[in-house]
This record gives sequence, structure tokens and C-alpha cells, in this order.
Amino acid sequence: MPLMRSWIESANAPETDFPLNNLPYGVFSVGDADLRCGVAIGNRIVDVTGLEEAGILRADPEADVLDAPFWNDFMELGPEAWASYRARLQALLGADVSEEIQDRLITYTLPQSRATLHLPFRVSEYTDFYASKNHATNVGTMFRGPENALPPNWLSIPIGYNGRASSVVVSGTPVRRPWGQLKGPNDALPRFAPCARFDLELEMGAVVGVPSEGPVTVAEADEMIFGYVLLNDWSARDIQAWEYQPLGPFQAKATATSISPWIVPRAALEPFRVATPERERPLLAYLTEPGPMLYDIALEVGLAPAGAAETVIARTNYREMYYSSAQQLAHHTTSGCPMRAGDLLGSGTISGPGRDSRGALLELSWGGKEPVTLDTGERRSFLEDGDTLTLRGAAFGDGYRVGFGACSGTVLPALADPYKRDGE
Amino acid sequence: MPLMRSWIESANAPETDFPLNNLPYGVFSVGDADLRCGVAIGNRIVDVTGLEEAGILRADPEADVLDAPFWNDFMELGPEAWASYRARLQALLGADVSEEIQDRLITYTLPQSRATLHLPFRVSEYTDFYASKNHATNVGTMFRGPENALPPNWLSIPIGYNGRASSVVVSGTPVRRPWGQLKGPNDALPRFAPCARFDLELEMGAVVGVPSEGPVTVAEADEMIFGYVLLNDWSARDIQAWEYQPLGPFQAKATATSISPWIVPRAALEPFRVATPERERPLLAYLTEPGPMLYDIALEVGLAPAGAAETVIARTNYREMYYSSAQQLAHHTTSGCPMRAGDLLGSGTISGPGRDSRGALLELSWGGKEPVTLDTGERRSFLEDGDTLTLRGAAFGDGYRVGFGACSGTVLPALADPYKRDGE
Repeated sequence: MPLMRSWIESANAPETDFPLNNLPYGVFSVGDADLRCGVAIGNRIVDVTGLEEAGILRADPEADVLDAPFWNDFMELGPEAWASYRARLQALLGADVSEEIQDRLITYTLPQSRATLHLPFRVSEYTDFYASKNHATNVGTMFRGPENALPPNWLSIPIGYNGRASSVVVSGTPVRRPWGQLKGPNDALPRFAPCARFDLELEMGAVVGVPSEGPVTVAEADEMIFGYVLLNDWSARDIQAWEYQPLGPFQAKATATSISPWIVPRAALEPFRVATPERERPLLAYLTEPGPMLYDIALEVGLAPAGAAETVIARTNYREMYYSSAQQLAHHTTSGCPMRAGDLLGSGTISGPGRDSRGALLELSWGGKEPVTLDTGERRSFLEDGDTLTLRGAAFGDGYRVGFGACSGTVLPALADPYKRDGE
Repeated sequence: MPLMRSWIESANAPETDFPLNNLPYGVFSVGDADLRCGVAIGNRIVDVTGLEEAGILRADPEADVLDAPFWNDFMELGPEAWASYRARLQALLGADVSEEIQDRLITYTLPQSRATLHLPFRVSEYTDFYASKNHATNVGTMFRGPENALPPNWLSIPIGYNGRASSVVVSGTPVRRPWGQLKGPNDALPRFAPCARFDLELEMGAVVGVPSEGPVTVAEADEMIFGYVLLNDWSARDIQAWEYQPLGPFQAKATATSISPWIVPRAALEPFRVATPERERPLLAYLTEPGPMLYDIALEVGLAPAGAAETVIARTNYREMYYSSAQQLAHHTTSGCPMRAGDLLGSGTISGPGRDSRGALLELSWGGKEPVTLDTGERRSFLEDGDTLTLRGAAFGDGYRVGFGACSGTVLPALADPYKRDGE
């Protein structure tokens, strides 16, 4: 598919994340004004709450759905409404619209540089998966040895666990280094201390838009997905190592999960579908895919120490996954688990086969044994206070890209004493 | 503390769960009418949404908080508002109120037998713990052998994992036997089939009423708890056995979690506080308790096969726990994990030391090897279709009891084909 041209010129530049082909959903504010729903185009934002109020573009003729300010009410209208709305918005922003309409619409746009971005949707619940075979093999080798690297169920189940929705934050939110129970392999007893092995996890997040009650097929699951975001599942490796047996990660994953501020519609990613890799063990019928369910999305991780330039520490691609989000969502419903609009599914850390394509410092530094050297000459086994992590991602079309915007966060130092209260 | 007498006579009977000392919070409807907030007293319900509308009893002079119909908005007013509201309601329902007031108030009550009960609060997120030493030892022995029964971290950490809030249902909701991936120890590959080892877990649930952002102490956590419910965490043991390594239970616990329909206020349980048992390993400072944080609540589980009488298969007490809900909540916040009004914390299965005091069939039947014999002569290793499970619990005062009402659910047969759609 070629670039779709817009009368907003910045949307036609090959380097923008937000051509007319994309039109991702976000929430913004200007100054102290109320939060509003917006759609990114080039270097501008369309105030679609304003378009709804003015009656110029309505998703639902009967009810306001963009006044929330969250996209959840819009999601609940379902895939036909999403498609219709997207088509009408693409028509209004297309290059061949009349100058009269352009003059009217431009007043409902603003430069992205003026806006503050917020969480684009209310996160109902958050589930994180473990679906890159390279990542699972690397981590399993470090935690359990090469013989037991891949758990026996891994090639049959898209392994997942429930995360903490209240800890999901939008890109730009600082992330404070957590305290937790730590116990070194040679310590007799644990101690309570700041995390010393704080890490990132490079992931994609799938946003569920259509609720379900009983089990759904992979094809149905794919139709339920509203769009995708970049996701950084901040992880405290030392807390996790001591807490995770037998019931899984808990506080190690509860400090924060950052997402990019724009939900890229599934429709915008359709030209970039690719198949999951060949199965090494046949999947049960309920997990088989009716078509390609992954996407060719190039991803990278940048790390910038406080006040210093950024080094790209990893480059990989979403197509490296063994399981797709649609397979994960289908598996998620097998027990009858109800899914809701606003559920967020983390893909799991995305690691490619190469050493520089690993999506976590745990793997990049091989558990801290082989620190990564930054362009500044500094070395990193895990994150230092003041480090800023930035994830970026884009699918590349013919002369354009469908991008996600940055997903970034800066590590703040741990509290000096988490139990000291004001006035003490 | 003695019985507080009410002019509603049924509240003064020693066998009622709902004396004036209790006044638990629920949500009810009559026929097709809208859902309303109610408070149980004896065999009646006080329509407190009606009292708010009429201006007779308001929790907040400025805003309606009982029109939701959920208790979350009330929770958000905080502990002082809870105490004030409870004191005023106890005064209105007390035996020495004038007949004129009684005549006015009685029109805002109805018999419980006329009402349908609903979830009393919007469950923000659901966390389940693993905090009975007897239960952990029993299950660990079965899953990992007696040498590895208690995980190394168990005496240091109140082990918890995130559950699925969307699957929480109110007592009386039928529970459908799930499908899932199953693999027997001698099978080469898993298959997709209905769960054959469907089980209950007898628990208490703590309802968080006060939100938090950073780490909180055990004393602060205790103040954040709004009240308690009975909780049955339905569990698919065969799904769990194959899926739970390395990241914990997922679909095995996502079918349903039933809770009793009335939130018993923490204030009503104050006279029944008891201490956790002596520590076998010293706790880290952040987990130490400033006072008794458990409650003396007698619990029992009844199992009734379809059309047959019930057998009580277990009797135990909430005081058997090694960790309290306040300790669990304090641990939950160590990483900076934000907590919200409406968060639900399952205590973990409550098992006493005796064979008949175990809170799950897995333990009662010792993994199916020693089936339980019911009064009907039938035997049970795990739940059969048509079985109705009922949890009951009460704290016993001087001539009265503070009870929770029943928490029940009936097992429906698995779907014949979960992927058959209407019209196929």
C-alpha cells in the first residue's frame, strides 16, 4: 500500500510516525485545560472530542463517546464503528478535500509540541506473556540452566500471568526504583532494600476493544483487538528471583509498566502482517492461526544516562515472537475468563537471535556478567538512577512508516526511607 | 461486647448473621427495578440509597455516593466518613429510637427474601495469596514432595499473585466447568479438554477502601481495609499443574471467584481480633504487626450433590493464617504498586492442622487418593457437575454472631464444544 496523502503537509514526510495511513488514538491536554481525545497526524493532533462536540464527526449519532476522556467508550462501539469512523476521518484529512473543509478543520488541530499526552485508555486489566523463544531460552538458561531453559509447557502454551493494571503509566512518566525483599544466593536471610537489578522489557501491547464471555477462537480474538502500543514492563530482577517461586512474579513487576501514548489501530497495521514461525511442536487446534497474526514492526531501545546522549542498545522486530497476541488472547479465554474493553496484553519481551537484538538488560548483559558498553564509554549491567529508556517502533511501507511514537521513562532514585511520613 | 439491640426484632435473635453490631454493605434489586445499595439487619435490608435520596441519612452532604449502585464511591470518602455513617445508622436502627422514626424508617426496609443480591462493589483488581502454612505444606508436599513442601521464601514473604477481577462473581452465580490444556504425568503431549479436577478454595477476602501510591506500613494497611467477605477461589487443579511453571497460575484460576454478597465492615470485626501465630523465622521490619491483625472467624464448607442434602466437608478458622490481610496489603505496596478502592485481596486457602479442617478438596482427598465420603454415601475427590458449594462464616460474640451470609455456587457441566457458535 502506498502513502495516503493528506492536506496536512507534515503527514506526507517519509520520516513521520503519523501519516494518514496511521491515525492513532490518544488523549491530550493543553495547559490546565481538560483532557480531550485526539488523533495524531504528522506533527499535529486532531481534537476529535471537538469534532464530536461540533457535530462534524461523530462515532455514535446517539451518544458522545469521546468526552470521557478515554477511548474505552469508542472501543465498545465495536469493529464496524471503528472502521466507519476511521474511513470518514481519513476522508476529511485526505489531500483531495476542499479548501473550505480544510479551513474549518484546521481550527480543530494543534501542534503536538503544545500538548501533554496522557494514558489513551482506562486499563481494565493487564496481562503479560512470555512468548519470544529467544527470550525464554536466554532467561531460562540463566535461571535454571541450559538443560531446563525452555519449560516443558512452553511450546504448547502461550505462557502468561496477570499483571497490575494500576501500575500502567504513559510514556514520559518517571519511574521510581522500587524497594523489595532481596536475597543473594549466599545470604542466609532476605533483606529489605532498594532494587539493585532494575531492568526494562521491550514489548508490544495489544489493546482489547471487544469484550467476551466464553472461549474465543484465534480469528475471533484477532477481531477483538483494537490496536497496539509499545510497552516497557519495568522489572526488578533481584526481587523477582527471590519471590517468583511458586506462584510467579508479583512485586518485581508492579512498580510500573510504561506504554506509548498513541494506540495504533489494527487497521493501520494490516499491510504489515506476517506469520508466526514454523511450529516446533504441533499446536492444539484452538491455537492454530487462520492467517498471519504477527506484524513486521522494527523495534529499538535507546538508553541515555542523565545528561548524556542516547545509545541504541537493542534492535529487534515484533515478528520474532513465537505466539501472536491473537493466540495469547484466545488462550486467555479458554477457562471462560471474561475479557473487557481496555484489557491490555503485553506480548512478552521481544528478543531476536542476535546478541544485540535482546529486549532486556538481563539478557544483553547476560545476568550482569557481560555489561553493555554505551557510546559514552559507560557500562551498564542494569539501569542506573537517571537513565532514560526509550522504545521506538515502526512498520515500513512504500515511502512511509506507521510508527508508535516514543515510549520513554526516566529512572528516579529509590526513596531514602519508604516509611518516613511528612512531618516525622 | 454485648448484643446491640435493634427495634427490628429479627436482628436480636442469636442465630442471625446480621445483628445491629454487624450492618454489612450490599447491593440488591427487587424484580426488574434498578439496583440499589442496602445494609442487612436481621432478616431485612435497609434501602440506604432510598435514605440518601430522602435526605434522611447521607454519607456525604455534597454528593450522592450510594446511587452507583456500588459501594466504591462510599469507600472513597475514607475511614472517618465510614465511622460516622455507621454510628448514625446504628443510632437510627437502635432499640431506643422513637416509634415515629421507626414508622418512617420501616418503609425504607424490605425482607431479604424478596431481594436479589448483586456484587457489592466494583472489583478494581484482584490479588490472591498463599498464606496458610497448613495449606502451603499440604499442597507443596503433593506437588513437590515433603522435602520441598514449603518454598524457601514462604516464611519471609506473604506470597501472592495477581488474579483476574473480571471473573469475580457474587454468591449464587453458577460456575461452568472450564476447558483447558491438560497433560497427565504419563502423557507425551497435552490435550484440550474439560477440567477433571475442579476444586474450591475456602478463603476470606479483604476489600481495600482507601487508595495508596507508595509503600504503606502494616498499621496503615489495616486502616485502608474497608471490610471482609467470604471468598471461594474456584480452581482447576489439572490445568494448574501443567501451566503454572514458571510464571504461576493463570487459566486455572480465571473461571470464577465467588464472594459473599455482604461486605462486613472492619469495624464490626474489631472485638474479634487475634494475633497471627508465633513467627518461625523473624519477619523483616516492614511486615511486623503493631497489634493483632487476624480475626477469630469460624468457617465451614458445605457440599450438596444435585438434589441431595449438604454435607459439611470442612470446618476451620481464619485465625489459622500465618499472614494477615494487613501484612499482605503492606507487602503488596512495597514496590510502589498503586492500590485502589475496590481492590480485593484473597487471604489464600485457609486450612487448619486437622484432616477435616482443610479448605480445598485437593487437600481433603489428598490429591484424589483418599476421596471424601458425603452423608449421602457418595464420594468426592473433586467437584462433580451439579454440586453446590456453600461457604459460611461468623465471629461469635456474647449472645450474638457477626456473620457473612452464604457464599455459594453450583457447578454447571462444561460446554459440549466451546467453539460452536449459534447457527452452526
